[in-house]
Amino acid sequence: MKNIPLILMGVGGVGRQLLQHIVSCRSLHAKLGIHLRVVGVCDSKSLVVASDMFSMGIGDDILLEVCRVKLDGSSLSTLSGSGEFQIFMNSEMMKKMIDVAALLGKSTGLAFVDCSASSETIGVLNQVVDSDCCIVLANKKPLTSTMEDYNKLVSHPRRIRHESTVGAGLPVIASLNRILSSGDPVHRIIGSLSGTLGYVMSEVEDGKPLSQVVKSAKSLGYTEPDPRDDLSGMDVARKALILARLLGSHINLDSIKIESLYPEEMGSSVMSTEEFLGCGISLLDKNIRERVYQASLNGKVLRYVCVIEGSRCEVGIQEVPKNSPLGRLRGSDNVLEIYSRCYSEQPLVIQGAGAGNDTTACGVLADIIDIQDLFS
Amino acid sequence: MKNIPLILMGVGGVGRQLLQHIVSCRSLHAKLGIHLRVVGVCDSKSLVVASDMFSMGIGDDILLEVCRVKLDGSSLSTLSGSGEFQIFMNSEMMKKMIDVAALLGKSTGLAFVDCSASSETIGVLNQVVDSDCCIVLANKKPLTSTMEDYNKLVSHPRRIRHESTVGAGLPVIASLNRILSSGDPVHRIIGSLSGTLGYVMSEVEDGKPLSQVVKSAKSLGYTEPDPRDDLSGMDVARKALILARLLGSHINLDSIKIESLYPEEMGSSVMSTEEFLGCGISLLDKNIRERVYQASLNGKVLRYVCVIEGSRCEVGIQEVPKNSPLGRLRGSDNVLEIYSRCYSEQPLVIQGAGAGNDTTACGVLADIIDIQDLFS
Repeated sequence: MKNIPLILMGVGGVGRQLLQHIVSCRSLHAKLGIHLRVVGVCDSKSLVVASDMFSMGIGDDILLEVCRVKLDGSSLSTLSGSGEFQIFMNSEMMKKMIDVAALLGKSTGLAFVDCSASSETIGVLNQVVDSDCCIVLANKKPLTSTMEDYNKLVSHPRRIRHESTVGAGLPVIASLNRILSSGDPVHRIIGSLSGTLGYVMSEVEDGKPLSQVVKSAKSLGYTEPDPRDDLSGMDVARKALILARLLGSHINLDSIKIESLYPEEMGSSVMSTEEFLGCGISLLDKNIRERVYQASLNGKVLRYVCVIEGSRCEVGIQEVPKNSPLGRLRGSDNVLEIYSRCYSEQPLVIQGAGAGNDTTACGVLADIIDIQDLFS
Repeated sequence: MKNIPLILMGVGGVGRQLLQHIVSCRSLHAKLGIHLRVVGVCDSKSLVVASDMFSMGIGDDILLEVCRVKLDGSSLSTLSGSGEFQIFMNSEMMKKMIDVAALLGKSTGLAFVDCSASSETIGVLNQVVDSDCCIVLANKKPLTSTMEDYNKLVSHPRRIRHESTVGAGLPVIASLNRILSSGDPVHRIIGSLSGTLGYVMSEVEDGKPLSQVVKSAKSLGYTEPDPRDDLSGMDVARKALILARLLGSHINLDSIKIESLYPEEMGSSVMSTEEFLGCGISLLDKNIRERVYQASLNGKVLRYVCVIEGSRCEVGIQEVPKNSPLGRLRGSDNVLEIYSRCYSEQPLVIQGAGAGNDTTACGVLADIIDIQDLFS
């Protein structure tokens, strides 16, 4: 039985779902000859570590207790303890993780799984890379920091996986890595990588006012609490940066041209979410309606896309042919078109749900299973 | 530098293209820290083996000479020799491959790459599995033989890759393996996995007679020399069987319901290719035209698909919604819709060119790079 020790950082929606999947997949993974041994779990304030990290993990009962505690909005420090685990807080936490990495990394191997949405994990990740640890990311921040941080993280390309940073469980990174490693040069990527903006653009295409569509999307739970976090395009830009760097571009987030769907004077420092939804956003309806109409005159539709082509990396609204995978997109699916030597006239298309805790956690879990050959 | 020794079986279109890719990707792969060391190449009659197989491979100049010889339609035995390699013929050939597998498999590792279209490789592959060798297949035959052969081949699941057996370079198997390993149960797969039949079905949808479409397809080089080899559905059935077995079905080729586009009385034992194209096939035009019309009354179109759902595995013409990824398919692209827990309402869709020597060889090469962690 192959033993994969891991530390999970971030036990919010995706991390919690991942723990549940790990527990529920025990017998499936045993059939594959794999045992996932969770030796540590942390949120932003506390780290729970198995007392005997060399041969034991945190028991499944405690992992499920972790899920319950986090679902209740409580802190990991409220876990009712036994001798099975220890809890480290705040400043002790980071030091302990690096200690565990040093102890396990080179001996049994250790995977750090980052399901947080925080920049604060970058420091730890950059250090554990040197201890031969593997890294599996759903968190986009570590890959969209400086080029120096990026290069450090990917310095051992086989020891890092990050499928869920771009299209949740969609096989985007895995497929691109296959194409690249076979020497098929990728010329162009164009995709709709935000379920929220995909939904918004296909609804305004039907003639609905932007303001109304965004409010519906918010009430359906499709948007962040402040929908401007989606409408800014920043999340899509991070995904675009990850793809561009994968293709070899040495660029940073601030070199990406990002079109925000609202102007600066409606930013969160100027007006509250309520003000934005109450009166700000409806001022944007007319412009979008006109752009939708103009596009339709050319048989095109508007999509909020990322485009990566050579050194160009852009994120924003574009007119795309109505009769293309992007143009036909409806609802909240993601879609990516990849053009290369092998896929030159017609692209390779990958399409499907690109968000959701279950799907994202499945992408992370597939990544963990995929690095199994690095463990003994 | 990671060293991956390999033996290539089959130097027809795909195998020849693979050798060219291996040679042209030398510097790319060196950057990835990988060296592909070709220690042997064989066609159906001759095996060329590096004289010093423990540390050297067959030189790139000779690999390219192999490509030229095969492109000329000559035998490998006509290779102008040096001390760098030895040639083994016929009965000696298989014995030598098993010897090499025994020598290298457990020491340095060895990958057998089967780009032939022959059943005759099954014997060798089944034996080298026991010598810890890896297997990379573009050849469908070994995976569509008996369940006993299949189980033997996949007995070490991490040591076999076979992306190019289903959709050429399309990331079908890699994506399915990711979904399965993350515990996301696949409920249903429906796909158009023949570029030829995809082209035929979208052309008859436009009102062209089947006979005319097949003759055009043949003249465009889209079909086998005898188009009945495509129209029989047997190639699609093999792909369906590979997918069904991947999902856990213990079935054989003869348990798949296969719809042939021509009746038995037009089979190759009854009439020649010329007779079939000259007068046979036009007798089929009316029936297809009527089915196309009937489907259109329900807003549907005909596609030649494989469907795998539970224990059901079928291959044939089905009516699919015009407004679905399958229904919108045009030309010779392949498309696969995967339904699972994570992709329940909208499927995961993978679409793109699913044939061609270049694309297929790239799929094989990506598979070889993907097993790198098993080599030292």
